[in-house]
Amino acid sequence: MTPPSALEEEESRSTGRVEAFSDGVFAIAITLLVLDLKVPTPAALGDAPLGPALVRQWPTFLAYLASFATILVMWVNHHRMLDHVRRADGAFLFLNGLLLLFVTFVPFPTSLVADYLLLPQGRTAALVYAGTYVALAIAYNLVWSYATADGRLLSRETDRERVRALSRQYRTGPALYVAAVVLAFWSAPASFLFCLLLAVYWAFSGALVVFRRD
Amino acid sequence: MTPPSALEEEESRSTGRVEAFSDGVFAIAITLLVLDLKVPTPAALGDAPLGPALVRQWPTFLAYLASFATILVMWVNHHRMLDHVRRADGAFLFLNGLLLLFVTFVPFPTSLVADYLLLPQGRTAALVYAGTYVALAIAYNLVWSYATADGRLLSRETDRERVRALSRQYRTGPALYVAAVVLAFWSAPASFLFCLLLAVYWAFSGALVVFRRD
Amino acid sequence: MTPPSALEEEESRSTGRVEAFSDGVFAIAITLLVLDLKVPTPAALGDAPLGPALVRQWPTFLAYLASFATILVMWVNHHRMLDHVRRADGAFLFLNGLLLLFVTFVPFPTSLVADYLLLPQGRTAALVYAGTYVALAIAYNLVWSYATADGRLLSRETDRERVRALSRQYRTGPALYVAAVVLAFWSAPASFLFCLLLAVYWAFSGALVVFRRD
Amino acid sequence: MTPPSALEEEESRSTGRVEAFSDGVFAIAITLLVLDLKVPTPAALGDAPLGPALVRQWPTFLAYLASFATILVMWVNHHRMLDHVRRADGAFLFLNGLLLLFVTFVPFPTSLVADYLLLPQGRTAALVYAGTYVALAIAYNLVWSYATADGRLLSRETDRERVRALSRQYRTGPALYVAAVVLAFWSAPASFLFCLLLAVYWAFSGALVVFRRD
Repeated sequence: MTPPSALEEEESRSTGRVEAFSDGVFAIAITLLVLDLKVPTPAALGDAPLGPALVRQWPTFLAYLASFATILVMWVNHHRMLDHVRRADGAFLFLNGLLLLFVTFVPFPTSLVADYLLLPQGRTAALVYAGTYVALAIAYNLVWSYATADGRLLSRETDRERVRALSRQYRTGPALYVAAVVLAFWSAPASFLFCLLLAVYWAFSGALVVFRRD
Repeated sequence: MTPPSALEEEESRSTGRVEAFSDGVFAIAITLLVLDLKVPTPAALGDAPLGPALVRQWPTFLAYLASFATILVMWVNHHRMLDHVRRADGAFLFLNGLLLLFVTFVPFPTSLVADYLLLPQGRTAALVYAGTYVALAIAYNLVWSYATADGRLLSRETDRERVRALSRQYRTGPALYVAAVVLAFWSAPASFLFCLLLAVYWAFSGALVVFRRD
Repeated sequence: MTPPSALEEEESRSTGRVEAFSDGVFAIAITLLVLDLKVPTPAALGDAPLGPALVRQWPTFLAYLASFATILVMWVNHHRMLDHVRRADGAFLFLNGLLLLFVTFVPFPTSLVADYLLLPQGRTAALVYAGTYVALAIAYNLVWSYATADGRLLSRETDRERVRALSRQYRTGPALYVAAVVLAFWSAPASFLFCLLLAVYWAFSGALVVFRRD
Repeated sequence: MTPPSALEEEESRSTGRVEAFSDGVFAIAITLLVLDLKVPTPAALGDAPLGPALVRQWPTFLAYLASFATILVMWVNHHRMLDHVRRADGAFLFLNGLLLLFVTFVPFPTSLVADYLLLPQGRTAALVYAGTYVALAIAYNLVWSYATADGRLLSRETDRERVRALSRQYRTGPALYVAAVVLAFWSAPASFLFCLLLAVYWAFSGALVVFRRD
């Protein structure tokens, strides 16, 4: 039989690998967003001034900012979650993979909303954008629920009250993004703005502060 | 002479570096897949609705899903394999490099099958797609066979029965993908669907569960 | 109560994760710069020689060099900074995220200045380029000021005199890049050249030497 | 005064960070190569078969293979080098940054040679391709010479005879690639083929075997 300390070390190494791979995926997805910022071609611009041409691209820059902030908050939350998780079993890896699938997908709806926000097709674009975050938030809750059900994958010293507080907090995510989806039927820019504000608010406040663990 | 414990630490550091580099390549390859998801240009779309235009791109989304799931399963298997490998010698690095060559190649056949699946040239696209996975599965088996032959690079505590079980399991990979190649001659969509189902099935079941090690 | 040593280990693990994620973002942003180097298409080149066509792209190559050197120096400084930081709280993560936002943005102004440096719109391009570095340098100072105010997040053994010396050094960054912005109103190439020289000078001298810590 | 063991740990952490950042850059550069493999557009292909269209792209695939193998060998060598280096001072970081500059540049000449190898401008493309590797090999030797001069940055237990053997081996790199440059004046395909064979030979043999350290 393995002594407890060796076992714990092995388990933590196990989540360490999931963490390193997930970190890589988050870091790449957040950096690939810049590829959506297109420089106007000199040929298309001709003699027109560059400044106004860039200003007209404001939906692209806002979409960049919104998606950057959202992925950053997701990364912080992902780490906070893995802090409490000691073991990674097969189902956990599968659910975490589902989460990463949606994280790597984010540049696509970002590009979509940047191109179509102000066009007649803006509603569809905003729906896909908010819908992606609904899927992300649900995947997030699935990973967390699986890990915490009966304290399945948690480390022994985890504070159960704290886990319940986090669970309550995480459950607001899907609800808020479903609200953004509904909002898109009324106004595409309003729905997108709501997503942007959510990400910036989370980046500023609660989502990050908890990292401090005290 | 070096004491055994120092030697073991050095050897494990050695595979640790291979693992970190391979993880980076897997994480980047899996995230680059999103670059294949092309947003229809507003100019080309005109007044047409966006939703149906996106739905018509379903082969692109399915190819994204299939390749994401396959690379994820490959990553999990790669880690499981390196868990049992203690030393990395020159031939091992070369074979692992061959495996990574095919991993970084995956976005190309993914793009090919996404563009041509429903066109008259679909058979060739499906052949290249399934053929890439045949090559990947063979490279995978080469790395594993080299590492395990005479227990060459295995750690001492490795369970030989477990190694044989893994070897048997890995050998089914090339056979299944050769079946996908054969299937492509009859129907491109069927071949592609078979590859997709394989990846999703593996992601759900056996391939991942073993990570748990118990 | 946790014993001090365990607490310190936990805190250092905490910044270790910020470091790993930031490293990933820096490494990807610096490598994505190459995507701006466009090969002239054979169709557009026709029978013309390739050498002169490449030489005519010199602004692109210079912009690549300037941005590479700047991100490299930023990475070195980021690491030097995190060497002194023991804890990462919510506000630190938010400010560090702001810094990373501008780091991932760098490929865009790089592409802009490469395309427009010698055209009538060069001034705007040089303004955006230098302006991005103003924002980066300010974000850098915000992170450092927050971490060092009242020694908030510093490790106990940090030399206070050294911190003050670094603070003075970092404060020159925004001032120098504001000078580059001003310079752009007079001459776009002069402003860009100034940014390039700053990065190369820093890469050669002070910025890097301090890494040695002695 | 710091006790020796603490000092050594700090120094090794110092090169550990350089190693992690460099690994990231190598992993991303090697994976970005796939972006050069272009799928023929269905519009351009029309009713023509896909197979022959892919086969006509063989220079692209060969260039992909050659650059992949070269970066892989460079990564292995970089790690082997850092195994012997204990400290990273400012000049070392600058020279290592120069090496990484050329590593991230590799996708550009790769794309160039893939597009122009068989065209009248092939000589220029082959010159740039081989010239990049001359620069890489020289940067490599600069890093190594700086680290080993007077045993400056080496760890104490480094075998001096081994260092001299490695230095001799590394010096052949620039010479061989200068030969490839000369060859390009006579025949572009011959020069490119020579670079490809060098990389594959190194990947197979000496360059990798030494990793084993025995």
